[in-house]
Amino acid sequence: MAPILLDNITPERSEYIEHEEVHVKNPHLHSMEEDILYHFNLSTKTHNLPEMFGDIKFVCTGGSANRMKAFAEFMQKELGLDGENGVEDICAGTDRYSTYKTGPVLSISHGMGVPSISIMLHELIKLLHHARCRDVVLIRIGTSGGIGLEPGTVVITDTAVDSFFQPHFEQVVLGKVIVRSTELDKSLAQELLQCGREILNLCTVIGKTMCTYDFYEGQGRLDGALCSFSTEEKLEYLRRAKEAGVTNIEMESTVFAAMCRVCGLKAAVVCVTLLDRFKGDQITASHELLQEYQLRPQYLVSHFIKKRLQLL
Amino acid sequence: MAPILLDNITPERSEYIEHEEVHVKNPHLHSMEEDILYHFNLSTKTHNLPEMFGDIKFVCTGGSANRMKAFAEFMQKELGLDGENGVEDICAGTDRYSTYKTGPVLSISHGMGVPSISIMLHELIKLLHHARCRDVVLIRIGTSGGIGLEPGTVVITDTAVDSFFQPHFEQVVLGKVIVRSTELDKSLAQELLQCGREILNLCTVIGKTMCTYDFYEGQGRLDGALCSFSTEEKLEYLRRAKEAGVTNIEMESTVFAAMCRVCGLKAAVVCVTLLDRFKGDQITASHELLQEYQLRPQYLVSHFIKKRLQLL
Repeated sequence: MAPILLDNITPERSEYIEHEEVHVKNPHLHSMEEDILYHFNLSTKTHNLPEMFGDIKFVCTGGSANRMKAFAEFMQKELGLDGENGVEDICAGTDRYSTYKTGPVLSISHGMGVPSISIMLHELIKLLHHARCRDVVLIRIGTSGGIGLEPGTVVITDTAVDSFFQPHFEQVVLGKVIVRSTELDKSLAQELLQCGREILNLCTVIGKTMCTYDFYEGQGRLDGALCSFSTEEKLEYLRRAKEAGVTNIEMESTVFAAMCRVCGLKAAVVCVTLLDRFKGDQITASHELLQEYQLRPQYLVSHFIKKRLQLL
Repeated sequence: MAPILLDNITPERSEYIEHEEVHVKNPHLHSMEEDILYHFNLSTKTHNLPEMFGDIKFVCTGGSANRMKAFAEFMQKELGLDGENGVEDICAGTDRYSTYKTGPVLSISHGMGVPSISIMLHELIKLLHHARCRDVVLIRIGTSGGIGLEPGTVVITDTAVDSFFQPHFEQVVLGKVIVRSTELDKSLAQELLQCGREILNLCTVIGKTMCTYDFYEGQGRLDGALCSFSTEEKLEYLRRAKEAGVTNIEMESTVFAAMCRVCGLKAAVVCVTLLDRFKGDQITASHELLQEYQLRPQYLVSHFIKKRLQLL
């Protein structure tokens, strides 16, 4: 086993922050003549990033490309922007991520799992840095499995935790394990909770979100191609998770929290629960109900953005 | 740290194999009335899976949805199948993966990273099982960074290794770390190497493939949003990788090898290198050259399939 190093658990993370600009934590970047954001099909030489993206104040990200396109269209309408031609994928030259800009809101998909969102975040943070964006808030709007919650509940993440219920994100760097804190911005979480309360019929809670590397065995599901544990062992694990304060399970929050924290970005995770994992593993709700559930984090975040922009 | 268990490193993996059917390793599945393959938008109740998929002999998978569509179109032509209406995404009701079937060949995207491909593999293996497929070969056709290889080299993976150069895949199951072997089928790799040799101008090698959870820090890149090491430390890590037999780096091979092995599926990984990591981190080749590189694993695998089907 390689040595484990602690990195950025202490408050030294703030050293790079000044005037709320978006900072990268990489001294090599400044000496590069060109920066190709490969998975976005953008580059500092071929695109005027400050002109294209300099006014971004909100980045909303979720797994599905279709969902993030729908969110961009929704925000276009909500912000009263001209939407005659619909929204256009800025990174249409690649199918890795889908990216839409509506006024100060960037809507971008991140695929599924920690590695997929981490590639997106590296390039997004560099993009925001190159574009000289200021006071940016990042929000992941996603889906999750609930732990003892009514399906359709919206969970705002207090702290992301790993499969051992620890507020840590482990990253292997040159054969050494680096551990980073996964705490999210408390005041932003409270502000979002308040938005949830202001929307009628939206059940919103704050809790810990467990992030796993696998949807089946990794989340204690009994219905994958592989499963070597009993129903009782599964339930015992979920009970332990609940005791540790875990309210829902998804697959991206730890690296999202860790990277945003290291780069001094205010960030939040808002996920709807599609089922109660104590009651089952398969997602059996109707397509229509699932669609309606997935709109809930979008409504909440749209309400937050409009409040911040003083449009309410 | 949780206890580490060894699982399936020993030859007991073959216990489920008989008549080369595709087997799941999950006793719970047999008692389920319905199996919803959520990320494929398919179910055993709503779809006749044996009729739709029972004749599949080859599953080819790669990260990009566009690339897997192009591969399906290419195979349709190569196999002389009726292609008047092009190919159609079988799982069009969801945007998580794109899936095309042309004769005995299933072409399916897996997104980026271990968690994304692992969800796909759980549902794919269950699909092949429910459809009662026999003698199926799985091949990942992807892109990678080369270690001291000319860009455009096609690497056939001998064994997938983790960031510590170990032939292991670690999976957290109910708070315990399970370790699985990542060895791939040696005779299939040799058969593919022979196919590479039969195609003129295709430089093909066999080697170890390192699988990481991150594209930037995790692969020793100096150009991410975060980087805390020097150029010399990066090169030292790559030199150690090369000494351990690593020829290329990508982000899916360990879980792909481990899951296929546990389920008794013959599997191979065929990736082209887009750059030599000793010479740089950014992918600077022209769009046209990169497109041409990405066709190379497709040509090789098409040649293999045609040979197997005795069409050559």
